[in-house]
Amino acid sequence: MSNNFDYKILAEDGGARSGEFTTLHGVLQTPVFAPVGTQATVKSITPAQLDALGATLVLANTYHLFLRPGDELVAKMGGLHEFMQWHKPMLTDSGGFQVFSLSDTRKVDEDGVTFKSHIDGSMKRLTPESSIKIQENLGADIIMAFDECSDPNNRAYVEQAMERTHRWAQRCLDAKTRDDQALFGIVQGGIFDDLRERSAETINAMGFPGHAIGGLSVGETKTEMYHAIEVCNQVLSPDKPRYLMGVGTPEDLIEGVLRGIDIFDCVLPTRLARHNSAMTMFGRLNLMNATFAEDTRPIDEECSCYTCRTFTRAYLRHLIVAKEMLAATLLSIHNLHTLLQLARDLRQAIIEGRLEAFADQAMARLNIPRTPKRK
Amino acid sequence: MSNNFDYKILAEDGGARSGEFTTLHGVLQTPVFAPVGTQATVKSITPAQLDALGATLVLANTYHLFLRPGDELVAKMGGLHEFMQWHKPMLTDSGGFQVFSLSDTRKVDEDGVTFKSHIDGSMKRLTPESSIKIQENLGADIIMAFDECSDPNNRAYVEQAMERTHRWAQRCLDAKTRDDQALFGIVQGGIFDDLRERSAETINAMGFPGHAIGGLSVGETKTEMYHAIEVCNQVLSPDKPRYLMGVGTPEDLIEGVLRGIDIFDCVLPTRLARHNSAMTMFGRLNLMNATFAEDTRPIDEECSCYTCRTFTRAYLRHLIVAKEMLAATLLSIHNLHTLLQLARDLRQAIIEGRLEAFADQAMARLNIPRTPKRK
Repeated sequence: MSNNFDYKILAEDGGARSGEFTTLHGVLQTPVFAPVGTQATVKSITPAQLDALGATLVLANTYHLFLRPGDELVAKMGGLHEFMQWHKPMLTDSGGFQVFSLSDTRKVDEDGVTFKSHIDGSMKRLTPESSIKIQENLGADIIMAFDECSDPNNRAYVEQAMERTHRWAQRCLDAKTRDDQALFGIVQGGIFDDLRERSAETINAMGFPGHAIGGLSVGETKTEMYHAIEVCNQVLSPDKPRYLMGVGTPEDLIEGVLRGIDIFDCVLPTRLARHNSAMTMFGRLNLMNATFAEDTRPIDEECSCYTCRTFTRAYLRHLIVAKEMLAATLLSIHNLHTLLQLARDLRQAIIEGRLEAFADQAMARLNIPRTPKRK
Repeated sequence: MSNNFDYKILAEDGGARSGEFTTLHGVLQTPVFAPVGTQATVKSITPAQLDALGATLVLANTYHLFLRPGDELVAKMGGLHEFMQWHKPMLTDSGGFQVFSLSDTRKVDEDGVTFKSHIDGSMKRLTPESSIKIQENLGADIIMAFDECSDPNNRAYVEQAMERTHRWAQRCLDAKTRDDQALFGIVQGGIFDDLRERSAETINAMGFPGHAIGGLSVGETKTEMYHAIEVCNQVLSPDKPRYLMGVGTPEDLIEGVLRGIDIFDCVLPTRLARHNSAMTMFGRLNLMNATFAEDTRPIDEECSCYTCRTFTRAYLRHLIVAKEMLAATLLSIHNLHTLLQLARDLRQAIIEGRLEAFADQAMARLNIPRTPKRK
C-alpha cells in the first residue's frame, strides 16, 4: 500500500531536503506548511482565497468533524474535499491530540479513549480502529495513526503512552482499508532521547509511507524541541516525508527544515489573526496598537499578499477597533502568506544550496538567535 | 455645480427608467442597488469580492465614520475610496437617520442635533454644515443633505421635521465647497400625501443633481410606502436620479423601480447573512434549519454567485452550526448577488420593454401579491 506514495527528494542541503510527495489530489512540494481548517474551513477564508495564497495542503481535525457534523455525513456528502471544496491535498489528524487537549474528562484504556465532547458534554469513544474508520470516511490524502499524547516531561507517563502509541500504530495499519490514503505513523517519547530513539526505530520499522513527530510544542523548551527533532530524524528513514505536528512559527519552520522536517501545520497564523496580530519575518505587530492609527504603510512593505498589496495598517487598525469581521480575514490572509511564502523560500534556498545563509539572515531579521544542532 | 452630474435616461418602461449617472469614479448604470459598508467595510466581504459581485455603488455611514475613526483621519488617509480601497462610486448618507435611530439621547434645535455617541456615550453634534464638512472629508461621489427624520405617522411632528429638513437642505447647498461630489436633496413628509407633495416640490426646486426619498421603510405599511413613492415621483424632476433610502427587499426593488426609483441601498442582505438567512427570488431560507443538513443543492440552483457555484446547503448549514465566520461571508456574497442581479435584471427588462411581465413573474415566484399603483 505504502509504495503508492512516492517521496522523491529533489535536493538536499545539510540535513534539509526538498522533495515531491505525490497524492491523488496533487503533488506536494516540500518543505510545505499546511493551514489548519479545523471544522472543514480555514477560519474566515474561502477556498478561493486559500488557493490564491498558493496553499497546497490543508489539515482538518478528526476530533471536531467526528463530533460535528459527523464523519458519516461528510462521507455522504462525497468526503471532505467535496464538502469543503478544497481539491488539493488534505491531511487529517487522528483525534488523539484533541482528546487530550480539548476534552475535560477522558479515560484511556488499552483499547482506546473515552471522553466528554466539548460541544454537548456527551460521552464519546475513539479507538485506533474508529479513528481510521472516521478518517476513511473523511477521505483526506494523508491520515494519521491514533496516538496517546502525554506531558512531555513526565518520563513514566511518556514511556507508557509511547509504548501504547506503538501498539495502536500497528492496529491502525491493520484497520486501514483504503489504498488512496497515506497513513503516517507518529513518533512519541517526549524530551527523552532514548525514548524518542526507541519510538522512531519502532515506528520506522512498521512500513508507513511517512512519519510524524508528535508531542512537541506542548510546553518543552525550544532547545528541547529542536533536539528531539534531531534525535528522531537521525533514525527516521530519509526517503519518507517527515511531518512536525502542530508547529508553525517562522523560527520553528526554519529550525525544523534545517533538521530535516518536510511538513508543518499550525493554527497560529489564523488564531493570531483573530487576535489582531500580524506575523512578519521581522516579528509580530499588534495592529490594535494606537501607533498604527495613521500608518499608511502595508503590514509588510515586502509582502505580496492581497492584504499588503491593498490595505494600510491604519485601515486594518480601524477594522479591528470597529470590531469588523474583515479584520480577521485580511490578517489571516497575510499571516498564512507569511508562512506559505517562508516554506517556498526555504525550498528555493535548499534547491540553490544556500540554506545556511538564508537561515542566518532570516533569524537575524526575526531577531531570534539560531539554535545550533547538538552534533 | 449640479450640471457636472449628468443623468442620461437610456430607456423608459411605464414609470420605470434605466439610465447612466456619471461620477468621477465611474458611471452608475441604473437601476442600481448599493451594498452598505457602514464602517468603511461591507461586513465580512473584501473589496475584491464586492467587485467580483459586480457592485458599482457602495454606501458608507457618515454617523459611524464621524465617530470612528473620524472623518479627519479618513481625509488624511486620502479619503474613503483610498482608505477602504473601493475605487468605484461611493455614497455617504448625512448622519441624520442614524442620529435618530442609534442615539439614545438627542436634542434637536434649529441649528442642528446634539446626541450621545453609541460608542462611548460622549456628547456629539451634527449640523447641516458639519455634515457636509464631514462628507467632504470622506469624499464620496454622492453625498446627502442633512435631514430630520421623524415617526412617519405623527403629522404634527412630520410636518415640523419636514419644514426644518427644507431649511437644512438649503444650508447644505450653501455649505458645500467641493464640485466633484453630487449633493442629493431628501424629500420627507411621512405618509401624508400633501406633505410629500409639498416636500418634493420644495426640494425639487432647489437645484440638486439628484433626489432621495427619505423616512420610508420605518414602520409604515408597504402600501403606504409605495404610495408615498408615487406621490414624490410625480413631482420630482424625471431627468434626475431618484434614490429610495434604506430599502432593499426584492419586492421593494421591483415595486420601487416600477414607480421610477433608480437607486436603492440596504443593510438587509449582509445583516440577514449574519443571521443565517439566504435571500432568494423564491423567498428566504434559514440555513440553520435541520432540513438542510444533508441537502447537496446550492442555495439557489439558478444563482451564479461564488457561494452557489461552489457550496452545498449542507456545508453552509455546517458552518452556521459550528459558528464559523465563513458562513457570514458566503451568505453575504449570495445575498448581495441576489439584489445586485435583480437590479441588473430590472434594468434589462426596462431596456427590452418587458418590465410588467418581469415584475409579474418575479412577484409570483416570490409569492408576494403585486401592489397596484394608486392611479
